[in-house]
Amino acid sequence: ADVKKIAVIAGDGIGPEVIAEAEKVLKKTEEIFGYRFETEHGLFGGIAIDETGTPLPQNTLELCKKADAVLLGAVGGPKWDNNPKELRPETGLLGIRKELGLFSNIRPAVIFDCLKDASTLKPEVLEGTDLIVVRELTGGIYFGEKFRREGAHGEEAVDTCVYNVQEIERIARQAFEIARTRSKRLASVDKANVLETSRLWRETVIRISADYPDVELEHILVDNCAMQLLRRPSSFDVIVTENMFGDILSDEAAMLTGSIGMLSSASLGEGAFGLYEPVHGSAPDIAGQGISNPIATVLSVALMFRLTFGYHDAAEAIERAVKEVLDAGHRTGDIAVDKSKAIGTTAMGDLIVNAI
Amino acid sequence: ADVKKIAVIAGDGIGPEVIAEAEKVLKKTEEIFGYRFETEHGLFGGIAIDETGTPLPQNTLELCKKADAVLLGAVGGPKWDNNPKELRPETGLLGIRKELGLFSNIRPAVIFDCLKDASTLKPEVLEGTDLIVVRELTGGIYFGEKFRREGAHGEEAVDTCVYNVQEIERIARQAFEIARTRSKRLASVDKANVLETSRLWRETVIRISADYPDVELEHILVDNCAMQLLRRPSSFDVIVTENMFGDILSDEAAMLTGSIGMLSSASLGEGAFGLYEPVHGSAPDIAGQGISNPIATVLSVALMFRLTFGYHDAAEAIERAVKEVLDAGHRTGDIAVDKSKAIGTTAMGDLIVNAI
Ligand SMILES: CC(C)[C@H](C(=O)O)[C@@H](O)C(=O)O
Ligand SMILES: CC(C)[C@H](C(=O)O)[C@@H](O)C(=O)O
Repeated sequence: ADVKKIAVIAGDGIGPEVIAEAEKVLKKTEEIFGYRFETEHGLFGGIAIDETGTPLPQNTLELCKKADAVLLGAVGGPKWDNNPKELRPETGLLGIRKELGLFSNIRPAVIFDCLKDASTLKPEVLEGTDLIVVRELTGGIYFGEKFRREGAHGEEAVDTCVYNVQEIERIARQAFEIARTRSKRLASVDKANVLETSRLWRETVIRISADYPDVELEHILVDNCAMQLLRRPSSFDVIVTENMFGDILSDEAAMLTGSIGMLSSASLGEGAFGLYEPVHGSAPDIAGQGISNPIATVLSVALMFRLTFGYHDAAEAIERAVKEVLDAGHRTGDIAVDKSKAIGTTAMGDLIVNAI
Repeated sequence: ADVKKIAVIAGDGIGPEVIAEAEKVLKKTEEIFGYRFETEHGLFGGIAIDETGTPLPQNTLELCKKADAVLLGAVGGPKWDNNPKELRPETGLLGIRKELGLFSNIRPAVIFDCLKDASTLKPEVLEGTDLIVVRELTGGIYFGEKFRREGAHGEEAVDTCVYNVQEIERIARQAFEIARTRSKRLASVDKANVLETSRLWRETVIRISADYPDVELEHILVDNCAMQLLRRPSSFDVIVTENMFGDILSDEAAMLTGSIGMLSSASLGEGAFGLYEPVHGSAPDIAGQGISNPIATVLSVALMFRLTFGYHDAAEAIERAVKEVLDAGHRTGDIAVDKSKAIGTTAMGDLIVNAI
């Protein structure tokens, strides 16, 4: 098989620990399925600030651009929280998304059988919840002009939210395509009763929907969506929305599954290239103790196999291995009911590797 | 007692039905406590569009400006949803907030004992939840410049989010004052890791906090807050945030209580003047059937008594009456477990009036 290049970015906090387990999984799938991966590590986030003076060093960016996919651990931590903007991990995150053209963030929110009770929602409400939030990732208020100025009432701050038709079209098409492979229902979220960008969003989504007559489209206001996710999570299939709304709603959706330590995500551009990362953050409070849960990162590898490489057999093997290990009752501390029986990061990684 | 002028705006959908019950409650408190109210009705929202060609007619605005408080039912409905901006009920809402200087929206999210099970959250998670979202209401992206333009990639839409120091100061002070009367914990919500307005927000809130050393201040990012509301709702006391975030989070908070048909809200400016309204909307699907729940509107009257008039005895009497009626097992359809035993809007209103 041809060699796939994977840029591996461990990042901060528990990033290196969970990435180490994901790399063991990569190696094991090479052995079993005959695929070949070439991994190269890059500095990114807080550690890159400490070692190179910038959160996104030029050679990390080049490493990613040369790669077929990127596997990311997590970035950030209190150490860098009060840094000036250019020296913050988040600035690196926004930079890498923009530089790699990753305009689409795919966030599946699914329930793991063994974690049904971990949610704060009632099991009967959660039953059958399996949704994907498709978040626009390189436009909107995150990337518009920002500045301070003197106004009539003292200092003012300004953020600008901009969307053009092309940006909305491409994310809408991607969401429709994904909906097509699932239950064929798409909810487009906006605030069209107030915002001009939302009105352009809605018009454009409606226009694109003509090419997807088989997909049922619904429009829902962002405030209402924040409520309906709570009230009837299982009624959603694919949700598509702009950057800021997607930030909020994808986190809400993730949390309501109760499985946030288990959720993976993909950030995609045009073509097959993608960046894959667990949804959970760098968890600095438990970093270095070897107790973090590597499953979301391992499942991010499976997602990479599916979406970037088309290695569905290996993806399935990983997903099945994770299920098997969980079904056998093994738990890391974050998902253990009986914390005294919790196993560590490497033990969990080993069990999954053996189950593949 | 001096006569208090109340501008009454019934609005659309179930608005007129629930307002009628609230007016009966007003009358009853006059009789019992000797307070005197002068109510005058104004057109607003969809009905105002139909009858006068604008959602916020000049004489309604003048009526409100002359009044000591405004009692609002609900506005909006599908009939006007596709109207041009100037002919939409929401435009009237934004207009009335701006014109009356209502910069602060107070949204209590509390659990009603008899409705504990109506929430989709587990009762043990919800236990003890009693929070208030203080939402900035006349600034931010809702009110900034909005326009379309031709860009390099086709048509673009732009929304501008602006906050000045004075706008942030006054809402921050109000939130600190409210926190002081409660558990003395304030969570300020922003997206300071990305937005310039959020950085000014956070700086300003920190500066104002020096005047409130007795209030414990925490900063929380909006995406994280959307998660934590779900995970540990009872840990919040007062939440203060900007307009757009407040729109989303206050609705999320309301929904998680399971009591959305029961929640009241206040929109305040400088001084005692305020606009009071139920949190639920105009519910066009059940309008005119006499089955809507008037309790949120009745409780909005109680909130008006507390915050604008300082009539704490009457406020308490209303709140106690509502509790009594609910404890006796009376329910409107929206909150009834056994729908066949549900009572109508006027029956519920009468029961409350009699219990005062
Ligand atoms: C760190 C921050 C800039 C980032 C975002 O809001 O996009 C994070 O919250 C995420 O969702 O990936
Ligand atoms: C109708 C709309 C403009 C309004 C808002 O978002 O402010 C509503 O959602 C609310 O929260 O009162």
